[in-house]
Amino acid sequence: MTHQIRKVAAIGGGVIGGGWIARFILNGYDVAIYDPHPEAERIVGEVLANAERAYGKLFQAPPVAKGQMIFASSLQEAVCDADYIQESVPERLDLKQKIYSDIEAHARPDALIGSSTSGFKPSELQADMRHPERAFVAHPFNPVYLLPLVEIVPSKANDRALIDQACAFLEEVGMKALVVRKEIDAHIADRLLEAVWREGLWLINDGIASTEEIDDAIRYGFGLRWAQMGLFETYRVAGGEAGMRHFISQFGPALQWPWTKLMDVPELTDELIDRIASQSDEQSGHMSVRELERARDDNLVGILLALKGNDWGAGAIVSDMDKRFYAKAHQDVGKSAPDFSKPLELHKAKVLGEWTDYNGHMTEHRYLQVLGDATDAFLSFIGMDEAYLAQGFSVYTVETHIRFLQEVPAGTEIKVRTQILGCDEKRLRLSHEMRTPEETVIATGEHMLMHVDTKASSACAFRDPLSGNLQRINDAQKALSLPDFAGRAIRAVE
Amino acid sequence: MTHQIRKVAAIGGGVIGGGWIARFILNGYDVAIYDPHPEAERIVGEVLANAERAYGKLFQAPPVAKGQMIFASSLQEAVCDADYIQESVPERLDLKQKIYSDIEAHARPDALIGSSTSGFKPSELQADMRHPERAFVAHPFNPVYLLPLVEIVPSKANDRALIDQACAFLEEVGMKALVVRKEIDAHIADRLLEAVWREGLWLINDGIASTEEIDDAIRYGFGLRWAQMGLFETYRVAGGEAGMRHFISQFGPALQWPWTKLMDVPELTDELIDRIASQSDEQSGHMSVRELERARDDNLVGILLALKGNDWGAGAIVSDMDKRFYAKAHQDVGKSAPDFSKPLELHKAKVLGEWTDYNGHMTEHRYLQVLGDATDAFLSFIGMDEAYLAQGFSVYTVETHIRFLQEVPAGTEIKVRTQILGCDEKRLRLSHEMRTPEETVIATGEHMLMHVDTKASSACAFRDPLSGNLQRINDAQKALSLPDFAGRAIRAVE
Repeated sequence: MTHQIRKVAAIGGGVIGGGWIARFILNGYDVAIYDPHPEAERIVGEVLANAERAYGKLFQAPPVAKGQMIFASSLQEAVCDADYIQESVPERLDLKQKIYSDIEAHARPDALIGSSTSGFKPSELQADMRHPERAFVAHPFNPVYLLPLVEIVPSKANDRALIDQACAFLEEVGMKALVVRKEIDAHIADRLLEAVWREGLWLINDGIASTEEIDDAIRYGFGLRWAQMGLFETYRVAGGEAGMRHFISQFGPALQWPWTKLMDVPELTDELIDRIASQSDEQSGHMSVRELERARDDNLVGILLALKGNDWGAGAIVSDMDKRFYAKAHQDVGKSAPDFSKPLELHKAKVLGEWTDYNGHMTEHRYLQVLGDATDAFLSFIGMDEAYLAQGFSVYTVETHIRFLQEVPAGTEIKVRTQILGCDEKRLRLSHEMRTPEETVIATGEHMLMHVDTKASSACAFRDPLSGNLQRINDAQKALSLPDFAGRAIRAVE
Repeated sequence: MTHQIRKVAAIGGGVIGGGWIARFILNGYDVAIYDPHPEAERIVGEVLANAERAYGKLFQAPPVAKGQMIFASSLQEAVCDADYIQESVPERLDLKQKIYSDIEAHARPDALIGSSTSGFKPSELQADMRHPERAFVAHPFNPVYLLPLVEIVPSKANDRALIDQACAFLEEVGMKALVVRKEIDAHIADRLLEAVWREGLWLINDGIASTEEIDDAIRYGFGLRWAQMGLFETYRVAGGEAGMRHFISQFGPALQWPWTKLMDVPELTDELIDRIASQSDEQSGHMSVRELERARDDNLVGILLALKGNDWGAGAIVSDMDKRFYAKAHQDVGKSAPDFSKPLELHKAKVLGEWTDYNGHMTEHRYLQVLGDATDAFLSFIGMDEAYLAQGFSVYTVETHIRFLQEVPAGTEIKVRTQILGCDEKRLRLSHEMRTPEETVIATGEHMLMHVDTKASSACAFRDPLSGNLQRINDAQKALSLPDFAGRAIRAVE
């Protein structure tokens, strides 16, 4: 009884609910939202703004058409025609159980229902439900629009086919669905996090370390490891050639004693709360929460892009999403049937913080990155897809002439206008103009490309569909005058 | 009684000792090594090879001249003239105490002595020492050459001036010295790690999760957060505008119950060890430990570079090291007094894995990155330093013509040969040739640069020392013929 998911409802729009909403919307899904909080619209709007900013940096592909955000005036209105419902209300079991009864009263019987709970078991949430088989824990991590992990926890009452459907949907919006084998309080990740909290609170309570020192002990050390390998793979590597079995049997007894110490939870007295709050102010109080959010998101984007470069872990997911976004963009370009008699606009980009130099302006080679991406967008537009490449053909740039006309700061939106300056059997001469939204020309590029047989490493004639499409566009653009920068050399001085 | 540190000794050359040795050597320090293990030289050599590979990717600046690695035949020979001694022998207190007695018998009385112990307190290590004031815990994290964190733990017996000196030295080799206020077993970071281990072992023991599932719960979720913020700053952000005090007082009671569960250590029975080892094989057994090490290092390099782009945390340290390496390289260039009548070789680079495209070849814009870095090296060579920039002058590239002649795979070493093609009061025309070590020309660049007043955003005349140096090199290079690619335009097709 599975069906395609088209409409999403979000019950609760705080930091977590807002993060879910942003992820759904930016993946093209309409979301109906119910949250009685008087400022819900503002809060969700702020999270969405952060998410759009981060996605602009994270993905190379042009963004997909955003889904619509519909604020419903009742839970009934939000869930009545939803295929997937995500509940993110405060962590009180009685409240959640009441919400599940309400959802059941108004939602379609085949709607999937995921709960953002970080602590409760699905069987607890399902206690009063008539159709418990379609409700499960879907526990995400803040910021929900960037961190891929979602813990999917079913109970014995769940229908496995529905769980599979939920996982497929959440993976389609770029998540890593980790299905937890047995329901337990706090699932998996928060068990680990709580253990660290407990130890961290003791370290502060006993005056061993401050909040900043604990954070430094994490982010300059094992935190860097954990962004890419977890606990076990890290120690498998550290253990060396002797292997995991050897490592774990050596390691256990060696650390037995500290392991068995200080296992209670320190009492959160007013004095301890006060100490933590003051230390945290001292550590991070020079930045507002908004500034910290942006710094966090920029760092996460950078880390995700670094892992994408190695096709590893969370980065491999970003890479998949980017491909999917590109595919959607090309479908859209295909639909719009552009006017070939004018320069084409096939590529957009936004100048990232890490693209800028010490002057705060886009670095030289990032101009060429944008121009190169525009060339890729053009090639993909004329039909150079994976199947074409798999035949052993590709297109290489052999010569490039760039004029840098304007400095651009981080955040600048760039669009690229592309014109064919000429082509023959094997060669293609292209120009790009990089422009701001206000049509200021930032830079120009003139490029000579060569069609190659990649196995023989030699030039060869374009094949269809490239050759036909090139001819068609070239014929249509012949009436255009050549840009004034074309065919020019760098002048001598002295 | 502090003195400058010039000579380093390493007692123990396993994974941790080898990591220390690599860090010292690649920062230009000679290291005398004592390790009776018959394969110590091979093991240290392998760690050093990994470290050189990673540093080549991590730093833009040319590497500093490596320190020498001297394998000593006795502890006495290794420590007798050392200024800093790092002990990394197995975690047995009796063994460590014996080593400290031996070190004291042979080392200079003012030598600093750091211990890599992850568990023992400094007062335990100092128990039999006559001069306990100069021995302390300096606990690093694997891989030691990449992770900046080192926990410096003094006891009450320590001389604070000596601890400060140790921190200054370790920060000079690119570490983040975290001085722990009070000695406790396992210091700070391992307390947190052990808490996670304990919880992780229970999750496996109880059949809740496999090693891979636990690793995924970390690396797709909170692990990404922890590479850049730690525990407290992360939750400060998540807590939002209500602040840390509000967050922590809400958070404690809500999670009280799971916190107080399962706090014993599971017994490491043969069956549990077996389960962990088999799960780990299934998870990572398709890669050898060497392959995993390289993947880990590539990921860490990428993460560090991403954080460097945001000048954040561990990335800010990389940035500082890079500046220091550049400064050293420029000193060296200054010393060698190159022959100005020939093209200059001022920049080298190595093609990184993340610079390559899906074909495995260097991406277009990375060619321009190397050419741009070569231009920066030339400008810095003629005297454009921070003081010059601070006066409000800079040099911008206004036009670039690149010919892409050869595909290059990751790992290729590139050197750049630079020639002045002409200059006047405000303008400089340069050419670069990118070559392999075998002198194959990979690409050529012709560049027009403009000297600018950055406040007025307008061209202005070069100032000294740039103008004088430019004139000198231009005069000396006038006898050279112009490269054949200079002054050429992209040809028309069709």
